Amino acid sequence: MGEFDLIRRYFLPVANAERHPSLVLGPGDDCAIQRVDQGQELVFSVDTLVEGVHFPANYPPEKLARRSLAVAASDLAAMGAEPVCFTLALTLPKASTDWLKAFSAGLATASREFGLSLAGGDTTRGPLSLTLQVHGTVPIDGAIKRSGAQVGDLVCVSGTLGDAGAALSLLDQPSPTAEQAALLARYHSPQPRLALGKALRGYASAAIDISDGLVADLGHLLEASGAGGVIDTHKLPLSDALTALRPDALQLALNAGDDYELCFTISEPSLDSLNSQKTHPEAMLERLTVIGRVREGPGLSLDGVSTQVQSGGYDHFGSQ
Amino acid sequence: MGEFDLIRRYFLPVANAERHPSLVLGPGDDCAIQRVDQGQELVFSVDTLVEGVHFPANYPPEKLARRSLAVAASDLAAMGAEPVCFTLALTLPKASTDWLKAFSAGLATASREFGLSLAGGDTTRGPLSLTLQVHGTVPIDGAIKRSGAQVGDLVCVSGTLGDAGAALSLLDQPSPTAEQAALLARYHSPQPRLALGKALRGYASAAIDISDGLVADLGHLLEASGAGGVIDTHKLPLSDALTALRPDALQLALNAGDDYELCFTISEPSLDSLNSQKTHPEAMLERLTVIGRVREGPGLSLDGVSTQVQSGGYDHFGSQ
Repeated sequence: MGEFDLIRRYFLPVANAERHPSLVLGPGDDCAIQRVDQGQELVFSVDTLVEGVHFPANYPPEKLARRSLAVAASDLAAMGAEPVCFTLALTLPKASTDWLKAFSAGLATASREFGLSLAGGDTTRGPLSLTLQVHGTVPIDGAIKRSGAQVGDLVCVSGTLGDAGAALSLLDQPSPTAEQAALLARYHSPQPRLALGKALRGYASAAIDISDGLVADLGHLLEASGAGGVIDTHKLPLSDALTALRPDALQLALNAGDDYELCFTISEPSLDSLNSQKTHPEAMLERLTVIGRVREGPGLSLDGVSTQVQSGGYDHFGSQ
Repeated sequence: MGEFDLIRRYFLPVANAERHPSLVLGPGDDCAIQRVDQGQELVFSVDTLVEGVHFPANYPPEKLARRSLAVAASDLAAMGAEPVCFTLALTLPKASTDWLKAFSAGLATASREFGLSLAGGDTTRGPLSLTLQVHGTVPIDGAIKRSGAQVGDLVCVSGTLGDAGAALSLLDQPSPTAEQAALLARYHSPQPRLALGKALRGYASAAIDISDGLVADLGHLLEASGAGGVIDTHKLPLSDALTALRPDALQLALNAGDDYELCFTISEPSLDSLNSQKTHPEAMLERLTVIGRVREGPGLSLDGVSTQVQSGGYDHFGSQ
C-alpha cells in the first residue's frame, strides 16, 4: 500500500470524525491551516512515544491511539487550553492492515472524545513510535503557566495518585481482579483533565500535569516559579484499590508517573471562589485535594522535613 | 546527562538564537504559546526524517540540523507563509556530547537563517529520527493551496531541477570536482523558497514544493485541483553541472526529489504582473521558468504525448 493510499484509507476518516471549525484546512496540502479567533492565542505541545519505552511492545493499537492522544492532550489541560487539533507523525515497522484499522478506529474515537481534529501528519517506515503535537487556544495572557506560583499558595491535585504506576506490574495479568482492573484502567485510559484545566483559568496561579510523578512535576513547577514547597503526605489522595493492593501506596503516589492528573497552586481566596463555581460538574472540582503549600524556595519537602527530594521521574537520557 | 540538562545545555541556546516576537512562550512549560495577529491565520506542517531513509547514516549533525529545518520550512514556502517557529521531536540512540554540540550549533544557525524560533520539543532514546513541525502565518484566506489550479494556467518552477537527485550517487565521493560539488550543495543545503512563496501570494493559483520529484508533486497539485497538465520537457531548467555530468539529466529533472524548488500554477496576466514586481530580488523572480500548462484532467503528459505518467516519488510504504 502506498503512503497516499494509507492516508486516504486510514487517516482521512479520522480527520472527518471530528472537525473543529477553527481547522480551516486539514490533511492533504503542504500545510494545514488553523484560524485563531481574535483575543485568543495558540498553545501547543509535542510528545513522542516510543514502543518499549513509553508503552509496552505489542500494545493493542486501539488503546495506543487513545492513550497517546490523551497523554498529549493532558499538556493542553495543564495550560487551561481549549482543544482544537493535532498532528500525528507515525513511524511504523510495517503497514499491517489490521493494525492500521484498529489504530485509526481508536484514534477517531479519541479525537471525538477530546475534541481534537486530526490536522495533518507524516508516515514513515521504522521502529514503532508516535509524535503527536496538540493545538489549543486560550484567551490572550490567559494560559496557566508553571511559573506563577506564589509563596503562601495552596498546592492541589485532581483525582487520585499512584494508580497508573501500580498498574505497571499488572500489565501481563491474565485475569485481573476488580481492584487490579481499576488500577489498569488508570494506565490504559488516562483522562486528560481538560474541563478542569479550563475551569482553573483565572484561579490557579500555576499548573502542570503529572506525567513523571508528583515530586518530579511539582518540583518543575516550583523551580519555574522560583519557589519551594511542602507536601503533607497524609493528605495525598489514594484510591481504595491502591491502598488495598500496595503497602507502598504513598511512595507510588509521590513518585510514580502516568496518572495525568493536574497539580496546581492557588491562593486560599481563589480556591474559595473556585469552589463556589460547582456548576461545572465535568470539571470534577469536588475531586480536588489540597496536599500542601508553596513556601520560600528552593526545594520541596515532605511533611515539613526539609529534605531535598530526588526526582523520581523517568529520565530518558539518565541511564548513561 | 538528564533530559532536562540536555535541553538546558543544547536547546535553550537554540531557542535564544532566534526569538520571533509572535512566540510569546518558548520551551520549558507544558505548552508553548504563539500569538497570531488579527487578520492572520496559522499554517503548519510536520515532517519526519529517519536515518537511512531520508538522510544517510552518520550524516554530519550540523548539516542534518540545517537540512531538516530547510525541508520542513519548504512546506511553509509552498503555502506562501511567513515563518514563525518550530518544534523538534528528536529521537537519539545515545546522547553524545559532540553530536549534540554540532547539531544544536547547526540548528541555531538554520533557525536564524530561516527566521524560525525553536518553540519546544521532546527528546527520547531510540534509533535516530527527527520530527519537525513548522509554524507560519498568512493573511486570512491568503494561503496558496494545491487545489486552486485553473485550466489554462501556466505551470512554473523556480531554480533548476534534478541536481539534488544527481548528488545521491556522489555522497561518498572523497574529493568532488567543482561540478560535482555544485550538485552536492543542492542535496546538503536545500534552500526553502520562502521569499518566493510570499511573493507568489495573490498571484499563483496553486503551489507545491518539489520534495518527491516534479512529476509526482505536480501530479498531486493537479489531482487536488481536479485538473490535468502538460510539461514541455525541453523547457525544464537544468543546471550546467547536471547537463555536463548526467546524460539522464531530463529524467532526473522529472523524477528525482530533494530539490525543494517551488512548482506553481499562475494565469498569464498574473505572471505578467508578478514579473513587473522585480523589486524583490530575494524572491528570485528572475529564476522562474514556465514549463507547461494546466489543461482538462485528469493526468499529466509530457510534450503533449498523452501518457499517464507514473509517480517517481519515493513511497515509504510502497515496497511491501
